[in-house]
Amino acid sequence: MTEPNNEPMVLREDRDGAAHLTLNRPGQFNALSDAMLGAIIERLDAIADDPAVRAVVIGGAGKAFCAGHDLKEMRANHTLDFQQALFRKCGKLMLKIQRLPQPVIARIHGIATAAGCQLVSMCDLAVAADVARFAVSGINVGLFCSTPAVGISRNMGRKQAFEMLVTGEFIDATEAQRRGLVNRVVPLEALDEAVDKLTAAICAKTPVAVRMGKELFYRQLETGIEAAYQMASETMACNMMTEDAAEGIDAFIGKRPPQWKGC
Amino acid sequence: MTEPNNEPMVLREDRDGAAHLTLNRPGQFNALSDAMLGAIIERLDAIADDPAVRAVVIGGAGKAFCAGHDLKEMRANHTLDFQQALFRKCGKLMLKIQRLPQPVIARIHGIATAAGCQLVSMCDLAVAADVARFAVSGINVGLFCSTPAVGISRNMGRKQAFEMLVTGEFIDATEAQRRGLVNRVVPLEALDEAVDKLTAAICAKTPVAVRMGKELFYRQLETGIEAAYQMASETMACNMMTEDAAEGIDAFIGKRPPQWKGC
Amino acid sequence: MTEPNNEPMVLREDRDGAAHLTLNRPGQFNALSDAMLGAIIERLDAIADDPAVRAVVIGGAGKAFCAGHDLKEMRANHTLDFQQALFRKCGKLMLKIQRLPQPVIARIHGIATAAGCQLVSMCDLAVAADVARFAVSGINVGLFCSTPAVGISRNMGRKQAFEMLVTGEFIDATEAQRRGLVNRVVPLEALDEAVDKLTAAICAKTPVAVRMGKELFYRQLETGIEAAYQMASETMACNMMTEDAAEGIDAFIGKRPPQWKGC
Repeated sequence: MTEPNNEPMVLREDRDGAAHLTLNRPGQFNALSDAMLGAIIERLDAIADDPAVRAVVIGGAGKAFCAGHDLKEMRANHTLDFQQALFRKCGKLMLKIQRLPQPVIARIHGIATAAGCQLVSMCDLAVAADVARFAVSGINVGLFCSTPAVGISRNMGRKQAFEMLVTGEFIDATEAQRRGLVNRVVPLEALDEAVDKLTAAICAKTPVAVRMGKELFYRQLETGIEAAYQMASETMACNMMTEDAAEGIDAFIGKRPPQWKGC
Repeated sequence: MTEPNNEPMVLREDRDGAAHLTLNRPGQFNALSDAMLGAIIERLDAIADDPAVRAVVIGGAGKAFCAGHDLKEMRANHTLDFQQALFRKCGKLMLKIQRLPQPVIARIHGIATAAGCQLVSMCDLAVAADVARFAVSGINVGLFCSTPAVGISRNMGRKQAFEMLVTGEFIDATEAQRRGLVNRVVPLEALDEAVDKLTAAICAKTPVAVRMGKELFYRQLETGIEAAYQMASETMACNMMTEDAAEGIDAFIGKRPPQWKGC
Repeated sequence: MTEPNNEPMVLREDRDGAAHLTLNRPGQFNALSDAMLGAIIERLDAIADDPAVRAVVIGGAGKAFCAGHDLKEMRANHTLDFQQALFRKCGKLMLKIQRLPQPVIARIHGIATAAGCQLVSMCDLAVAADVARFAVSGINVGLFCSTPAVGISRNMGRKQAFEMLVTGEFIDATEAQRRGLVNRVVPLEALDEAVDKLTAAICAKTPVAVRMGKELFYRQLETGIEAAYQMASETMACNMMTEDAAEGIDAFIGKRPPQWKGC
């Protein structure tokens, strides 16, 4: 899918094992139009099956990270059917991030509002520039950010999430980190270096263990603690029987670097 | 219900769209006697059906915010039946706050202990004076704060909640904010201004979106993430079809202030 | 169970109502071998039935608190059966801590890694020296810390937990406290004093209320809020009918210290 200027809506650039996706509607602050949602889903589907990709970075072109849904498009298609389909597609994208085999890192250099803030909340990890700002501001236009609430309330305390949702007010990057919405905050000029450091740390691991672990991590969060331990114990035992775990432990005991096979 | 001096047990004063409730047993540090629980429930029931009320503030008269249950009354009625009925009524009140269509803000100017601290935890938002202090101190008299634990453990980390419950020790307002129990901490003399600022922010929104959002917010917290997204997507689509969302978005695009109709 | 030098694998020393357990494989950084897991379980089983014990402290001998599983043993028994049995036993231990009638405090004086960090996360409370460091570093050897993830993700925000799990990097004690993994951080030379202060606070309470409260605390965390209030209200009413609650309240009203009977 492309913009009128024939630029792809989502750019992809791979380097050092990481796929860097860039939302590319800078003139619309990377608004999540129906087509944009489809374009991100398409990129993620391709990445899910790509063994060369070990980590994913999602960033935005232009001034903003992402300003949420495309309000003009939503008003131009003012039927319940359109809205339901739109929000289901958006939810599908958000769950796809969580279910992707590779860790996904949000790279936030500017504002992340409404569904843009939701996108941050649903990535596995997030690195923000100190100038980034976050809000779930739909309530200001009469539209409570209910779908963003799902992600936001799973990143921070409920009172802090509810305050953002009901006031629509911005928080800065430092406050976002304090609340748990982002992992790291750095000066804007150090943002790429910080993201690269994180992707490098992930790419140094064996992907088989990362994949098994990520899948288990979110699954066990949804159950009681006894079932969680049952699932996790089984995952742990299976992980232990992989070739890379044997290699990793032998290398550790032998004080040499491991040679991953990826299985 | 009134105190012996014929003052109502819970005062109500409405201004600028917000109903300000004041627990009014200052001589008993606003203890939650059976009658006091009933009086608060009665006030909230009236507010739930009052379209003029857009936000609720709960504060306390006198020195304390609320010192919890009325221990003398509990000892004077020392039967299992009385205790069960009392705690069920208290639980009913706490859930009513969460289910009220309007956001509820705790205004804490002094100590909030045991069920008083629980009351803070169950409000949607909380603003504290810097001199406020918080404890779940029932354990000191041989009564573990089990019902307060429900709210406290949904506001802060489990180790931090368990420490408060098992030691009965106080934390100050700054620590309460750090843990997620309160949203904002201000000097005592600025407390009303901070509360008013928050109610004004809420009253500036359309109540239809606030109501839909608040209801969805707590409902989706109780489910797995996939079901949460299904619920939230449906809420979002319905919210989008309200007149006020159309108006809000059109006003935003047209760079003019919205005119809410409340539907 | 003993080490080759005939020292017990887990030391127990009781004082002032608290049982102090010390993991005692200092040469192996207190690695959780199959035998070590069994030895801790044995100690906890004995403590569960010991009315003289009001609080439990778990610490480690030597330089480390606990460096996780015994990788050499795991590689020497490289069958799926062994791994499954090992992780099930480990999970059994972790749940036993949570189900023990008495509160369990982790005393962390050095590194706590992988299942050692998990052990910290599953204790009810944790006190750390400022020199302590925490990591779930299995991913570095190709083994994602899936079972530690269960505890870690119930102590801190999901992004922060996932970062630790996928990078394997250390956090220091101050950061561990900020995230919720530990309750208190003190200089190493003040560690025993801080632990003793906490056990003394717990031992000053009536054990009947502590036991009822701890059991309820974890049970209600696993349910929706309405069921949580039902459980907690019933616990509260039963707690109120204990002799010690009556004594505690009467003592409070009479401004005298309570005389606990433990029932």
